[in-house]
Amino acid sequence: MTPKIPDSGRFITLEGGEGAGKSTQLRALAAGLRARGLEVVETREPGGSEGAEAIRTLLLTGGADRWSPRAEALLFAAARADHIEKTIRPALARGAWVLSDRFLDSSRAYQGQGALSDSDILTLHRIGSAGFLPDRTLLLTLPEAEATGRAKARDGDAEDRIGGRASDFHRAVADAFAQFAMDEPDRVRAVDAGGTADVVTARLMDAIKDLLP
Amino acid sequence: MTPKIPDSGRFITLEGGEGAGKSTQLRALAAGLRARGLEVVETREPGGSEGAEAIRTLLLTGGADRWSPRAEALLFAAARADHIEKTIRPALARGAWVLSDRFLDSSRAYQGQGALSDSDILTLHRIGSAGFLPDRTLLLTLPEAEATGRAKARDGDAEDRIGGRASDFHRAVADAFAQFAMDEPDRVRAVDAGGTADVVTARLMDAIKDLLP
Ligand SMILES: Nc1ncnc2c1ncn2[C@@H]1O[C@H](COP(=O)(O)OP(=O)(O)OP(=O)(O)O)[C@@H](O)[C@H]1O
Ligand SMILES: Nc1ncnc2c1ncn2[C@@H]1O[C@H](COP(=O)(O)OP(=O)(O)OP(=O)(O)O)[C@@H](O)[C@H]1O
Ligand SMILES: [Mg+2]
Ligand SMILES: [Mg+2]
Repeated sequence: MTPKIPDSGRFITLEGGEGAGKSTQLRALAAGLRARGLEVVETREPGGSEGAEAIRTLLLTGGADRWSPRAEALLFAAARADHIEKTIRPALARGAWVLSDRFLDSSRAYQGQGALSDSDILTLHRIGSAGFLPDRTLLLTLPEAEATGRAKARDGDAEDRIGGRASDFHRAVADAFAQFAMDEPDRVRAVDAGGTADVVTARLMDAIKDLLP
Repeated sequence: MTPKIPDSGRFITLEGGEGAGKSTQLRALAAGLRARGLEVVETREPGGSEGAEAIRTLLLTGGADRWSPRAEALLFAAARADHIEKTIRPALARGAWVLSDRFLDSSRAYQGQGALSDSDILTLHRIGSAGFLPDRTLLLTLPEAEATGRAKARDGDAEDRIGGRASDFHRAVADAFAQFAMDEPDRVRAVDAGGTADVVTARLMDAIKDLLP
């Protein structure tokens, strides 16, 4: 973790399964924080910097077996190292707030299923990025059927390499996220993502209000 | 390490600084092994599989500071995981010999300078590739001036992101390679790369003769 000075920026990540409303809420939170006079940088993973976006293209194109889980985990860690170094740290250093659509916990929840242990993923993050963590992680929780309905209404049936997986897998991902919230209650806050977008935004704002200047 | 059955293939890597003669000798060794009736797969790092070649393109293009040393080490480890899984292991499993122009020890010698410890690089290899090692690593040693002369005669003055570095750096790389040969004398054999190509090939053949069927 970077040492924080009182007026420095904060790093907030939004996590949760597909269709939970992360991208929608990221825009709403950014607007709410800007209305308070803060500089806000909106970013996402994988990606968020020139090098990381190039890695993102490698990760999200090709067949489902283009990359083994281990190669995939290393690529995510490489993209994250670049994202942190080129985008996140410079923004925080000048006092901006950074909101990221997915971050480390998505790697832990998705790549940590099966071939890699959570401890391996955390080790990659230690080697790649000195274990750098968000000030707050907002975990959007929504029953799977509702999330799938939202995502399908948006996309038709289009799915990428990561999204197009079975229901068991998505359940394991949701369980993993829930576990992170239990393990690190100060950093990771589970927030009910059901209801209208405005209602959810209000819950999220409440979950970061202790970090506001 | 994969368990070996008596007639299975062998995995041989060629290592050493720029211009030492790795690529030249890899071709000569492959020819010599084929003349003995062996199937030989010639490969290289970074690269050697479709995914790893795509990562190679990311690694070798852009300015010298496109990637931090940590992101670079993760990308090399990702490429290596893909290379091993898609190219090296399948070839060994069908009894072929695999010769690779650079491998793990190049990551240790190049990316292990400065930001990353050797232990971090080995950890990435453990997570990415279960610590898979060559049966023999041939380290081509040549005084720096001679190697630079060879490489310049070949390339004019063209240098890529990795090759275009100062003399101190190349000396540290050579020292690191020499240390690996001392640490693992059974796997890593330092071979004098001075003299004609034929003379060097004979030395290299001698350094793998105990592995021949
Ligand atoms: N509170 C809400 N109620 C109803 N629909 C919503 C709500 N929030 C978002 N949506 C809609 O649901 C769909 C999914 O939302 P969004 O794209 O924000 O989710 P996401 O978590 O970013 O998904 P993905 O992981 O696939 O990127 C979108 O069409 C969005 O407009
Ligand atoms: N024994 C030798 N004597 C003289 N010249 C040689 C010898 N072996 C190779 N060369 C020449 O030296 C140059 C460098 O050799 P080579 O490309 O095989 O080295 P390398 O180790 O693969 O270099 P790099 O790390 O840059 O790929 C080439 O032009 C090659 O033809
Ligand atoms: Mg989204
Ligand atoms: Mg070469």
